[in-house]
Amino acid sequence: MKSLGRHVIVELWGCQNIDSLQAVEEAIRDAVAATNATLRDLQVFPWEPYNGVSGIAILSESHLSIHTWPELGYAAVDVFTCGEHTDPEAAIPVLRERFRPQRMEVMQVSRGMIVD
Amino acid sequence: MKSLGRHVIVELWGCQNIDSLQAVEEAIRDAVAATNATLRDLQVFPWEPYNGVSGIAILSESHLSIHTWPELGYAAVDVFTCGEHTDPEAAIPVLRERFRPQRMEVMQVSRGMIVD
Repeated sequence: MKSLGRHVIVELWGCQNIDSLQAVEEAIRDAVAATNATLRDLQVFPWEPYNGVSGIAILSESHLSIHTWPELGYAAVDVFTCGEHTDPEAAIPVLRERFRPQRMEVMQVSRGMIVD
Repeated sequence: MKSLGRHVIVELWGCQNIDSLQAVEEAIRDAVAATNATLRDLQVFPWEPYNGVSGIAILSESHLSIHTWPELGYAAVDVFTCGEHTDPEAAIPVLRERFRPQRMEVMQVSRGMIVD
């Protein structure tokens, strides 16, 4: 079997810098670069009413999203890429460096499983 | 325990209409409406080189994405919403009606689990 894409789901707790639009945007740009994916579009919005931030990068190889809850120190991150030239797991050290989480949970879902 | 968000991951196989930018855009709009989420931004792109489509809705309550591989009849869908007013599972009948999949796999991930 092989998969068409790899989807890394990251739960970050005890984060810093997640109330800043600029910090989230920079983290997304760095994370996309680390995965070797190609950025097609990037949108970053404040997330009412809790000073959260919602940022989504549309990639040529799927997407990378970050939604934050600063009042809880929590960020939900998805890194979904396809193609052998990309590595979604490479986003993880970037998230760790940028947000300094006290705790992190990572799950990987293989998307589009097909018989080789 | 309660979760901050519900993330429904849908794998659709044997789909129709997934090579059409317009069909994917309409499906996203209908699916967002069904979940009772609020659309903030919608981007739909052709996905080279296989006539695929990549569409992402940024919601006030997270995001909804569809990436398609028409040559394989496959679509990868994510419906991530938060707030008790939203129901990400309500997107599923819309996907079924719009894309007529022969097979569908659904997984739900509770995001941001906190002690109540």
